[in-house]
Amino acid sequence: MNVAFVELYYFSQRFQNLQIPYHIKLSMSKDLVTREANYSQWYNDIVTKADLAENSAVRGCMVIKPYGYAIWEKMQQALDKMFKETGHVNAYFPLFVPKSLFEAEEKNAEGFAKECAIVTHYRLKNDPDKPGKLMVDPHAKLEEELIVRPTSEAIIWSTYKGWIQSYRDLPLLINQWANVVRWEMRTRLFLRTAEFLWQEGHTAHSSEKEAIEETERMLEVYADFAENFMAIPVLKGVKTENERFAGAVNTYCIEALMQDGKALQAGTSHFLGQNFAHAFDVKFANKEGKLEHVWGTSWGVSTRLMGALIMSHSDDKGLVLPPKLAPFQVVIVPIYRTDEEQSLVSSKSLEIKKELEKVGVSVKFDNRDTHKPGFKFAEHEFKGVPLRIAIGPRDVENGTVEVARRDTLEKSTLLTSDLSVKIVHLLEQIQQNLYDKALDFRTNNTHKADTWEEFQRLLDDKGGFISAHWDGTPETEEKIKELTKAAIRCIPLNNNKEQGKCIFSGNPSNERVIFARAY
Amino acid sequence: MNVAFVELYYFSQRFQNLQIPYHIKLSMSKDLVTREANYSQWYNDIVTKADLAENSAVRGCMVIKPYGYAIWEKMQQALDKMFKETGHVNAYFPLFVPKSLFEAEEKNAEGFAKECAIVTHYRLKNDPDKPGKLMVDPHAKLEEELIVRPTSEAIIWSTYKGWIQSYRDLPLLINQWANVVRWEMRTRLFLRTAEFLWQEGHTAHSSEKEAIEETERMLEVYADFAENFMAIPVLKGVKTENERFAGAVNTYCIEALMQDGKALQAGTSHFLGQNFAHAFDVKFANKEGKLEHVWGTSWGVSTRLMGALIMSHSDDKGLVLPPKLAPFQVVIVPIYRTDEEQSLVSSKSLEIKKELEKVGVSVKFDNRDTHKPGFKFAEHEFKGVPLRIAIGPRDVENGTVEVARRDTLEKSTLLTSDLSVKIVHLLEQIQQNLYDKALDFRTNNTHKADTWEEFQRLLDDKGGFISAHWDGTPETEEKIKELTKAAIRCIPLNNNKEQGKCIFSGNPSNERVIFARAY
Repeated sequence: MNVAFVELYYFSQRFQNLQIPYHIKLSMSKDLVTREANYSQWYNDIVTKADLAENSAVRGCMVIKPYGYAIWEKMQQALDKMFKETGHVNAYFPLFVPKSLFEAEEKNAEGFAKECAIVTHYRLKNDPDKPGKLMVDPHAKLEEELIVRPTSEAIIWSTYKGWIQSYRDLPLLINQWANVVRWEMRTRLFLRTAEFLWQEGHTAHSSEKEAIEETERMLEVYADFAENFMAIPVLKGVKTENERFAGAVNTYCIEALMQDGKALQAGTSHFLGQNFAHAFDVKFANKEGKLEHVWGTSWGVSTRLMGALIMSHSDDKGLVLPPKLAPFQVVIVPIYRTDEEQSLVSSKSLEIKKELEKVGVSVKFDNRDTHKPGFKFAEHEFKGVPLRIAIGPRDVENGTVEVARRDTLEKSTLLTSDLSVKIVHLLEQIQQNLYDKALDFRTNNTHKADTWEEFQRLLDDKGGFISAHWDGTPETEEKIKELTKAAIRCIPLNNNKEQGKCIFSGNPSNERVIFARAY
Repeated sequence: MNVAFVELYYFSQRFQNLQIPYHIKLSMSKDLVTREANYSQWYNDIVTKADLAENSAVRGCMVIKPYGYAIWEKMQQALDKMFKETGHVNAYFPLFVPKSLFEAEEKNAEGFAKECAIVTHYRLKNDPDKPGKLMVDPHAKLEEELIVRPTSEAIIWSTYKGWIQSYRDLPLLINQWANVVRWEMRTRLFLRTAEFLWQEGHTAHSSEKEAIEETERMLEVYADFAENFMAIPVLKGVKTENERFAGAVNTYCIEALMQDGKALQAGTSHFLGQNFAHAFDVKFANKEGKLEHVWGTSWGVSTRLMGALIMSHSDDKGLVLPPKLAPFQVVIVPIYRTDEEQSLVSSKSLEIKKELEKVGVSVKFDNRDTHKPGFKFAEHEFKGVPLRIAIGPRDVENGTVEVARRDTLEKSTLLTSDLSVKIVHLLEQIQQNLYDKALDFRTNNTHKADTWEEFQRLLDDKGGFISAHWDGTPETEEKIKELTKAAIRCIPLNNNKEQGKCIFSGNPSNERVIFARAY
């Protein structure tokens, strides 16, 4: 914080009663590059400068900092509640997968083999050549290598084999909160990291119908969470064969659109058919006593959602958070010069905090005496706190507070009577406004393309979702991706049937699919 | 469940109005070996047959099953709340520690080097000799090996270096919920597993005094949790040098006593001094602008607590859970023969469930039609549900329910008026009774020994905590351990000073310490 700004701030306080000059509010965000200038840098700056996460000493692995982790905890709580409401329970399975289990479902193994961390030894010893240093003990080699789980189908289905004998044991509706590791070559904070946190649901059913219903139910849960908590509209659809989860019969997904016109897959729900039941020999006796293979699903969302959240709502002043996921929804900043004023203002602030907490609003009273109000304003704005309340001595006198919205940057002076009702209402407005803005953005950035030229032009000029005909072949899909870097994000659920011609091959098509460049 | 038992049960229902013959209640526990016959087998049986956990396909790693995980979740929620109330926030640090960071704090590294999982490669490839099989790709060897964290001091202090510049950045009060791996040779479910779940607090302070206060504060939090949630009385103390955490200046601990007379370390809180600050060069500018090394603490409890919980309260009929940590505190079992009776009893059950939930009691309505009441009674008893409510048609008529306590196995018929008040009161009584019983057990199994003979005799006859004089040398401590397998569990906090002679060496001592054989 520039000292001159702070002084100017106090000057302004004295003479203008809480009107903060606009340029002071920029003091923190002035270091933030604009989205237009460099979107990628803008994203990284928000992640690191808003104290969400940073790169660690381990290649591709991140440290999730307390403020970022608090958002993730909010997501976890909301999702966990939704999972439990739909009948799921949590459990925990091992971090490691023995190689022989890992390779049992061949397609799944093939999909992850090229990017996994492998434990080969279980002991270090002193390095005889380098005093004080350690080396891997060559005598402590594992008989069978262990794969650090990139996903847990293999270890879980090998366990389910012991849990399932009869139709009475089904369905198994289990979720796990865990860390997984995929050795990605190019990593980006939250969006693609070697280790990430996620939840993975793994369910087992006695019929295909029931398993498909479960797959679709969890897609709905994800869409509900994305729209109603993250304030991000999502497209629901199924993946093409090329983009399907390795080992699945069908992959459902929710796709969101970021402000730079690129898509982001925000969650997937897989119908596994009987693939893992075959690979791990998991059978059940049906009501007639006949043995059948079990049907499976798996579904997951990860800390990648943090990336979606940041990129959907934030602006050139920093992070913008929807109230339902903000670590604290309201920050109260006291404004005072003398001890007497401080005491007056603090006691009013605490009273308001208590009143707000009573109606379920989370509040931080920022009474740090190591930082000036101007610094605090800038910091909380940058960190996306939905509402800021400033209280000075004159406010206490007048029975008012100054309230600033992070989403619109509007400020207003409110009477403190019924303040909690007004604040709750404002928070609801902010949540809705963020969703509406994101939906408008998506609407304005979804286009139809009917020719190859139009398709290319739209991609390069505007990005966004492009709805176009495709001939249904993996070859065409790959060719388009190779030429334009745009992939088929999904075939929307309940898609309109419409006759047309593939934009690339000209072959007949009976529905449009959604293309986009993507994270 | 033996079918004959179920029929006998129905017979008894018809003629004795809900009085369940005693032997039927044993139907599930009859497979459980008694504590006296084989304590170790008894423990394993409870863990596996009560669906808490089981061994996995990965050597030394367990699967925590849904019922066991639900208890762990209750523990997490209570602890997490206590950590937050004492000013801590959560964050997440990488699973892997590069070898060069791992070895930086030499004592710490030495303490864990012999038991850690090491990642050496990052890719598998198809095995040319075995179609469909995979092998480690020798071309994908990491330049620097990664250690799967056995504890996170190294990775966290290397991160803190970037977060701490000035006294204004202190204290850092951070906790992490995570999985860790220690390659133990002899493992037991929950008590000692290669991978386990835990929380690890890592705090950084500007003064020695403040860091010691933090270490002691967290020990108090652990003791509070053990006693008030787990209903386990614990001894608070400090470890001897031999038993200290590798890299700590001082290790505080809470020690519990199990029913077989063996001690179990239930939590540790370490004062790290400036050891990790030195190893990772973490300094701060104090108020005078002078650079000083930062002071640290770390503290943790793990899924090992599940073992302590099981062994403290359970009996020869199965698991016994304190109400504050039970996945559900009350189970309602409906008793009916006809559809009409079912409808009557179910509607009353749901009414009671709702009433109980309104006052914060967690309730399971066990309306499975795949299992008979006798089976359900036995199952819930075995799984330690604190209170069972049985409701039959005559109960509905009479405005009564039958309530059975798991801790005392007492049954009583209660009028349904004010039932929620009575149930809340009963749950409180059970929680208190379990604590009192455990405290009595500890009191009865804590003995003073003043001679070597007495010490050995007490150990072999009774086990338990033995309070005895020790000359303060690591040599004597080791010798005693070698001869008797008993270790010094702790030097109690606020220990009475008392002149005496070491039971082994006869050398002078000015306080007693606590010995025991231990898990």
